Amino acid sequence: MEIKSEWDILAKIKSAIDTRGVRKPPRLIMGIGDDCAVFEVNGDRYGLITTDISIEDRHFRRALSSPQDIGFKAMMSNISDIASMGGAAQYAFISIGIPQSCAEEYVLALYDGMIDAANMAGVALAGGDISKSAHLVLNIALYGEARKRHLTTRSGAKPGDIIYLTGALGDSRAGLEILLSGETSAADRYPALMEKHNRPVARFGIVTEIIQMFNPTSMIDVSDGVLSELWHICEESKCGFRLIEDKIPLSADLRRYAAEKNRGPLDYALHSGEEYELLFTSPKDITRTMSVNINKIPVTVIGSITEKGFVTVRNSREAEAPISGFDHFKEQ
Amino acid sequence: MEIKSEWDILAKIKSAIDTRGVRKPPRLIMGIGDDCAVFEVNGDRYGLITTDISIEDRHFRRALSSPQDIGFKAMMSNISDIASMGGAAQYAFISIGIPQSCAEEYVLALYDGMIDAANMAGVALAGGDISKSAHLVLNIALYGEARKRHLTTRSGAKPGDIIYLTGALGDSRAGLEILLSGETSAADRYPALMEKHNRPVARFGIVTEIIQMFNPTSMIDVSDGVLSELWHICEESKCGFRLIEDKIPLSADLRRYAAEKNRGPLDYALHSGEEYELLFTSPKDITRTMSVNINKIPVTVIGSITEKGFVTVRNSREAEAPISGFDHFKEQ
Repeated sequence: MEIKSEWDILAKIKSAIDTRGVRKPPRLIMGIGDDCAVFEVNGDRYGLITTDISIEDRHFRRALSSPQDIGFKAMMSNISDIASMGGAAQYAFISIGIPQSCAEEYVLALYDGMIDAANMAGVALAGGDISKSAHLVLNIALYGEARKRHLTTRSGAKPGDIIYLTGALGDSRAGLEILLSGETSAADRYPALMEKHNRPVARFGIVTEIIQMFNPTSMIDVSDGVLSELWHICEESKCGFRLIEDKIPLSADLRRYAAEKNRGPLDYALHSGEEYELLFTSPKDITRTMSVNINKIPVTVIGSITEKGFVTVRNSREAEAPISGFDHFKEQ
Repeated sequence: MEIKSEWDILAKIKSAIDTRGVRKPPRLIMGIGDDCAVFEVNGDRYGLITTDISIEDRHFRRALSSPQDIGFKAMMSNISDIASMGGAAQYAFISIGIPQSCAEEYVLALYDGMIDAANMAGVALAGGDISKSAHLVLNIALYGEARKRHLTTRSGAKPGDIIYLTGALGDSRAGLEILLSGETSAADRYPALMEKHNRPVARFGIVTEIIQMFNPTSMIDVSDGVLSELWHICEESKCGFRLIEDKIPLSADLRRYAAEKNRGPLDYALHSGEEYELLFTSPKDITRTMSVNINKIPVTVIGSITEKGFVTVRNSREAEAPISGFDHFKEQ
């Protein structure tokens, strides 16, 4: 039978593991289902592990991105997964499948990009595996740790909680559009959009402050698109959301670029993955009376958690949210 | 510049990480260079992580092996890496790149094989990633733990130590030869050789006993070939070896099969990777006076550690060992 979708095959794999796999693995707090697996390592801390595979012509194109950027993004997306659970990434394990067409310099440039991202977050490259391959393949497994009281999953959101977002959305999508279009003049005029797409910096640097200030009930990183991430939180927390689209922060560059293209900036913001902003929920209504910036990163209210239903609000008009994450199996 | 060899590009990557990466990562005991990375998780135990990538037409062929066997071997090779450092594997993280040509049933059969191997060693499948891919790619990252006093690396062998080996060598190579030849009659006549190639069981079940009985100074699993593994130990331990080839244990099936092919069984034993037997060194001379079997697995003396030089002995004749591991980049 042909594979229907990423979610469908994943559900069947999970079911096989639940049915046939090791029952109640000792000290495993969370297995498949969140950004990372979580397990007990000592009295104070949980160990977190996440893994991500990047495959040529699926996740990146060698003709469009520099090897440094490909390596940087692959590492940063894993660092973001650890941060989104309240942890700090520590050790990275890199598997690489190298095609004949990759010169030594190209491979070392990939590692340069990975080291750049790892250094920003204090991550050590601690192991890996190398093979030849018909296509370039990069898999990163990342180990991190979280203080037990800092652990934040997708499953704790409660009706009435406020939905917060760090930074702004849409820049990465606009940057990708410019990259795909090959318009070098646009790339020159919008360096910040290109930077956000090519070298996104995950919010690992402010996650401790977010936890201390907001004590979030749930958290996730925006890697597939804001609606998809909200849906993940609501699935795991058994609740609904009300997203005020008009409140989604948009950069001045995105507004200018979208105007140039005769499109609304929200078209970009709503359908932008690889943003690596943090989306979290909290009962604390901090930003009502003050605007919050942590290390110059704005934190903005973009909606609220409800009992059920997925609702978006634009220009005061309510609509049902079109829920569809980025699915690697449905992709063209 | 074209990549010269796996070892060459690995050395350059290590050098880049050493030069540009995070300096003295906190609590990292060992990074790149052994079967696993080792880091401190609590007062009693080290955390161990290993990762292995398996790529279609490099590590396996879909036409030759069942998906269950492909999954089983991929998982078992990682379990073996953890065992070879004295640890017990706990949580597995599976990344898979799935080609269009793989039906849902095929993918689930791969997971069945991985679950079979994981269950044998008490390993839980705790996370992963899925993508489409032009070729089938499987990456497993495995977390395990070792009691601190059980940790056994490649670097502690001392001149005068005895070299021990579990089980027998060569069966996996003979099984592969039968598989590649397509001789179904040979496959039927030598089920044990096929089993050793298709479903090798790593020695995780006796590693604690080995440590308690022998207190090994170094240990490694035979995944690339016995000479290559001895060379790894001697590189890390700064010593030499004297391998008595005549003492390498050979199964009765291998002897029969080799005779049928007019070859010496040692031709198979010396060039057989994927055996997942444990090779270790110890000053304890236990087997001089008694034969040692642990859970029916024989443990055999096959040589000794020397000050320097790589020497093999066959029919009492000494020769210089031809050192060449299995290199994925030199492979045809």
